[in-house]
Amino acid sequence: MSGPSKGSDKRFERKFRAGVLGATGMVGQRFVRMLANHPWFELAELAASERSSGKKYGDVVKWHLDSPIPEAARDLLVKELAPNLDCDFVFSALDSSVAGPAEEDFARAGYPVLSNSKNHRMDPDVPLLIPEVNSAHLDAIAVQQKNRGYDGGFIVTNPNCSTAGLVLVLKPLADAFGLEKIFVVTMQAVSGAGYPGVASLDILGNVVPFISGEEEKMEEEPQKLLGKWDGSRFVEAGMGISAHCNRVPVRDGHMECVSLSLKKIASIHEVAEVLRDFAVDDELASLPTAVRNPVVVVEEDNRPQPRRDADAGNGMAAVVGRIRECSLLDVKLTLLSHNLVRGAAGAAVLNAELLAVRGYLQHRVAVPLPVAEPIPR
Amino acid sequence: MSGPSKGSDKRFERKFRAGVLGATGMVGQRFVRMLANHPWFELAELAASERSSGKKYGDVVKWHLDSPIPEAARDLLVKELAPNLDCDFVFSALDSSVAGPAEEDFARAGYPVLSNSKNHRMDPDVPLLIPEVNSAHLDAIAVQQKNRGYDGGFIVTNPNCSTAGLVLVLKPLADAFGLEKIFVVTMQAVSGAGYPGVASLDILGNVVPFISGEEEKMEEEPQKLLGKWDGSRFVEAGMGISAHCNRVPVRDGHMECVSLSLKKIASIHEVAEVLRDFAVDDELASLPTAVRNPVVVVEEDNRPQPRRDADAGNGMAAVVGRIRECSLLDVKLTLLSHNLVRGAAGAAVLNAELLAVRGYLQHRVAVPLPVAEPIPR
Amino acid sequence: MSGPSKGSDKRFERKFRAGVLGATGMVGQRFVRMLANHPWFELAELAASERSSGKKYGDVVKWHLDSPIPEAARDLLVKELAPNLDCDFVFSALDSSVAGPAEEDFARAGYPVLSNSKNHRMDPDVPLLIPEVNSAHLDAIAVQQKNRGYDGGFIVTNPNCSTAGLVLVLKPLADAFGLEKIFVVTMQAVSGAGYPGVASLDILGNVVPFISGEEEKMEEEPQKLLGKWDGSRFVEAGMGISAHCNRVPVRDGHMECVSLSLKKIASIHEVAEVLRDFAVDDELASLPTAVRNPVVVVEEDNRPQPRRDADAGNGMAAVVGRIRECSLLDVKLTLLSHNLVRGAAGAAVLNAELLAVRGYLQHRVAVPLPVAEPIPR
Amino acid sequence: MSGPSKGSDKRFERKFRAGVLGATGMVGQRFVRMLANHPWFELAELAASERSSGKKYGDVVKWHLDSPIPEAARDLLVKELAPNLDCDFVFSALDSSVAGPAEEDFARAGYPVLSNSKNHRMDPDVPLLIPEVNSAHLDAIAVQQKNRGYDGGFIVTNPNCSTAGLVLVLKPLADAFGLEKIFVVTMQAVSGAGYPGVASLDILGNVVPFISGEEEKMEEEPQKLLGKWDGSRFVEAGMGISAHCNRVPVRDGHMECVSLSLKKIASIHEVAEVLRDFAVDDELASLPTAVRNPVVVVEEDNRPQPRRDADAGNGMAAVVGRIRECSLLDVKLTLLSHNLVRGAAGAAVLNAELLAVRGYLQHRVAVPLPVAEPIPR
Repeated sequence: MSGPSKGSDKRFERKFRAGVLGATGMVGQRFVRMLANHPWFELAELAASERSSGKKYGDVVKWHLDSPIPEAARDLLVKELAPNLDCDFVFSALDSSVAGPAEEDFARAGYPVLSNSKNHRMDPDVPLLIPEVNSAHLDAIAVQQKNRGYDGGFIVTNPNCSTAGLVLVLKPLADAFGLEKIFVVTMQAVSGAGYPGVASLDILGNVVPFISGEEEKMEEEPQKLLGKWDGSRFVEAGMGISAHCNRVPVRDGHMECVSLSLKKIASIHEVAEVLRDFAVDDELASLPTAVRNPVVVVEEDNRPQPRRDADAGNGMAAVVGRIRECSLLDVKLTLLSHNLVRGAAGAAVLNAELLAVRGYLQHRVAVPLPVAEPIPR
Repeated sequence: MSGPSKGSDKRFERKFRAGVLGATGMVGQRFVRMLANHPWFELAELAASERSSGKKYGDVVKWHLDSPIPEAARDLLVKELAPNLDCDFVFSALDSSVAGPAEEDFARAGYPVLSNSKNHRMDPDVPLLIPEVNSAHLDAIAVQQKNRGYDGGFIVTNPNCSTAGLVLVLKPLADAFGLEKIFVVTMQAVSGAGYPGVASLDILGNVVPFISGEEEKMEEEPQKLLGKWDGSRFVEAGMGISAHCNRVPVRDGHMECVSLSLKKIASIHEVAEVLRDFAVDDELASLPTAVRNPVVVVEEDNRPQPRRDADAGNGMAAVVGRIRECSLLDVKLTLLSHNLVRGAAGAAVLNAELLAVRGYLQHRVAVPLPVAEPIPR
Repeated sequence: MSGPSKGSDKRFERKFRAGVLGATGMVGQRFVRMLANHPWFELAELAASERSSGKKYGDVVKWHLDSPIPEAARDLLVKELAPNLDCDFVFSALDSSVAGPAEEDFARAGYPVLSNSKNHRMDPDVPLLIPEVNSAHLDAIAVQQKNRGYDGGFIVTNPNCSTAGLVLVLKPLADAFGLEKIFVVTMQAVSGAGYPGVASLDILGNVVPFISGEEEKMEEEPQKLLGKWDGSRFVEAGMGISAHCNRVPVRDGHMECVSLSLKKIASIHEVAEVLRDFAVDDELASLPTAVRNPVVVVEEDNRPQPRRDADAGNGMAAVVGRIRECSLLDVKLTLLSHNLVRGAAGAAVLNAELLAVRGYLQHRVAVPLPVAEPIPR
Repeated sequence: MSGPSKGSDKRFERKFRAGVLGATGMVGQRFVRMLANHPWFELAELAASERSSGKKYGDVVKWHLDSPIPEAARDLLVKELAPNLDCDFVFSALDSSVAGPAEEDFARAGYPVLSNSKNHRMDPDVPLLIPEVNSAHLDAIAVQQKNRGYDGGFIVTNPNCSTAGLVLVLKPLADAFGLEKIFVVTMQAVSGAGYPGVASLDILGNVVPFISGEEEKMEEEPQKLLGKWDGSRFVEAGMGISAHCNRVPVRDGHMECVSLSLKKIASIHEVAEVLRDFAVDDELASLPTAVRNPVVVVEEDNRPQPRRDADAGNGMAAVVGRIRECSLLDVKLTLLSHNLVRGAAGAAVLNAELLAVRGYLQHRVAVPLPVAEPIPR
């Protein structure tokens, strides 16, 4: 996995300055890395809990990614979690215990908030966005701002890590055939639990058949994602969904075994073709983090596999294999997506890119910073 | 896990002498260990492929179990795979590439064959037996002997390792409520693939979403197991079953996420109670390898787990947890069973015990052995 | 692994009542299990941090062992960490952040303290005890009591988990040939770090070449263990020791690659023989947790292995393999011991057993308990 | 890890055409990938055992690398192992059971052979080459050709995967301070054993303290690598070396705990500085696969780690950490190198690059190929 790779893109006169809330955690680190070479965004501010604030990022972060801490981030002073950051918008990788009010504070203070946290995902006026799936939901932003009295600021969320890959694969099937029922069993990587997250004593050579709140999210979020914004509210897609969620001893990449039934009769061949042909339009394809074909279909019997396929499409593609008939519903398949990229940081960055081209991001006038000063080096 | 533990049982005047076909493999080793202290059976003969025959077992076996090779087996001469073994009946842990005709040869030569191989499981006159589930299927033996002209010999099989645990859990539900549809996704341990089996490069930190032939077995075998023998043929249970099978980096114990629908309305509480109350009758409970309650219901959210629960009931129990409502079918649950014990060697030993008390085993007159002589020690 | 297995032992008129300090941690749980069926000791009191005190043990412990929580422990009220427990002596599995003064408080209040914590191991008047190695060090107890004004109470410690197995193997070699230099590299199991301990993200498919403080302990403790008590102080053994310590993705069992030089010339054959012949005297062999031969020598090239050999001798034996010549020093070998049994709880229980037969434990008159009352069930 | 990255290099008028012997194995696949975008070499021929020959590479290889099979290789016909390949030189990833005579056949037929196999490494006229360490050993080629009557062809080998990283780290220390004794314990990744290699049942949650022949190689090969070619023969370096080799459940990257003594007194600081300053000259630095600083020194206590550091320098650097005093010898450190890149394919490619710039490779006139024809696509 690496960050965006479409080279220098001169679409905007200057880069938008991004802040990262919750910058020291697993997802926060992915944001920091993805912003290191982003053609449209630059990393301007890092904020985290009190324990870290006031210190250099490189001194407080326990860095988990394989590539080193980006130079641009290492010496940045970590700020406290208050809506006075000098940036144009923020990514939130905050823990759900603090994300709720904190993200509202930033939105109220005028910041567009791109949140990976679960807190506002199901709010009736907050878009739960996957650009390839439901970009029309951005129309809810205006209602949100009006409802809440936000001036310029707003909240846009991306789905739960295991929902993201599933819905990406469901979308072309919903469009082509209609969806009735979805049965899904996940085998999820440990990085989805953050750091320190899952204790090695619990997962070495083991499977844990429970992830708190995960099944509920997987049964709820697709209804909103595949549903419609009717101008004033979200209308659920109305499919039946049943989810079982498990943790397995894998580092990155959530696997999902899916059986589903379609409204329209379709052959396995047609299903595979629809998935293989799923391609985004030119607006989306021009986003630095997007891939033209966000679903990759593999032919080998024993794929996808997390260790071999999680980085497909720089971690932004869902990989589908074993498309075959289901003796109970219509179709069986196995899918995989990268829980930290497509399922977290990459998802939010892609959302921000769509917001940028749609004109939702602005270059803000710098707020005078009352507290922290850059350390003289 | 340890072998039978009911102590000395004087039900039979002397022990039945057992042979093990395919004695050097993973399942063969389990047979050898379970027979080491068995109150009714003694290990009399070991047979394996030509490569091993004529040598001492201790010299040719690559022993995988945690306890040492039983003394009684270490110096036994491994025989070739021919139906002239000096024993009363045989367990077959043969590879499916040779099991088909070899097991028939033994049955034709008069040996009761307790087979763990897949070859004859679905034969129309061969019992696929789980004593707690379908002991009435033993009536098919008479028809089998007549059909095939077997004199004294016969074949009885036990199910596939992932089927065994599933059906043990389905049985009390089928009896209490009737079963309509079963959706099952497995996460199977590497020991199920034998030795050397799964390459570490394929499975370390990974999941492989494919096990050849496994989904077919899981969709077929329960129909026979939960069906009826009508005096001349097996009548399928007629449920709908859909299976996805995966390999995970776990040593022993197959996990299964199951959703199912019932013919009769039942609450989650009633389902749990029926599972918890599932107990075998006195005949079965008296078998050395049996457990009175072959289904163990655990309460903790995050159980069962293979590393912590696979040895429940000496590996002969299925452990069920997370019994809850399913938004598509009626009930969701997670189950676990030990693939090498309940799913292989333990299953066949239990079958042999049932055959013994039902009078299907006889003390055979020793066949004169033309070839191998015990090595003088 | 199971607890002591020597059956009922009528050596003492009634059992000594044991308390466990730090009862909820990994080592504390091992104590609880080992005491569940102990012929000489009974589990009388459990103490832990404030967070747990006042609650039932079964409600606060996150139980990690494969066998269930012993019934006798489940409903015991956890006490706070104060020296007013109603028991004859205590085992300490306290974290080193609190063990230092807490253990002194108990000793001062008259309790024999059997400590697994590092805090007092190197104190000049505290025995660091392995019964098979240096039982004469118990003479230091009288000096300790005099030095510190302890009346009846005292502290006896057992070594660090990686030191324990090493010294058990070094002892017969030191006696037979004398030891000069020891080079040791460990590959240690994650359970040695307690729970939650090592994060799965750090160790899945990985090795971490650092364990805080471990190398220092391995270079210091053997000097005391293999040294002498001269009546007033401990005289170090004076060997050269160099240790490298690593964490590997293994659950239980610390592996150690050792090269060593001897004072007396010895063949590989003689070294192996001395290890194989190492046996304890009748006093030690009579202790319930002892094994007659605490060093097991295995012949196979590829043994010992943690998953297959850690439970040798119920976890109380060190397993040695690959004894061969070293081109730099004299002998190379690989050893393994169970870090939670021989390296922690089992070590302290064995120490307590030796203290019992040597008359160091007394049946204390019950202290009136001012605070906690047993919950009426 | 990716292949050479120095971009288009016009040093040679046209690319040298490379053949790969043993192209379907783990190391063969690494060769194929490294040659896919090589600026000086192009993949011209693939040869393998009879089982594969005559078929397309993409149809017979079980591909293990994370990136897909290079397009240029997928449709190449695999040839049999005979010295009539249409290429300028060959890389050999042959199994040691066949490499001995096969490599001689190719050398005799005029091909430069860059071998990763162990068979000829210790031959008295065959260079065992690490360009950063002993490029002067190439002078042995002329003697080899004379000795053996080779006309144009010759054999150059690279060391064993665990030797490679060790010697790269020892080299600057040998130059600066002189080396006396080296004690090394390895923790080696499973990919070093090829495919299928280590069975998952042997290594999941386990350590295996034995790798056949590995300790012998690690004690022999550094003597030749760090020794001298005196014009007619290799003079050994004459250090004392003792090695223990272990397999651990890690995919890629061999860890080594090393203690060593120096001829000249040096502080830990000086040792670290010498390692940090180790840089190759401009000739070497210009090789596409070389890194200017082949030893990377890390500061963190808990590094290097295989999963996080094996790809340093595109897999061509050795990573050193924990440089500290040894209480027996002088210095302790931990090192890591990528067993399939620096320890195998990358090593041979780098060797070939050095041979190219030194004029040892020639564009051979195409041999008329009697047997295989390219398949029309």
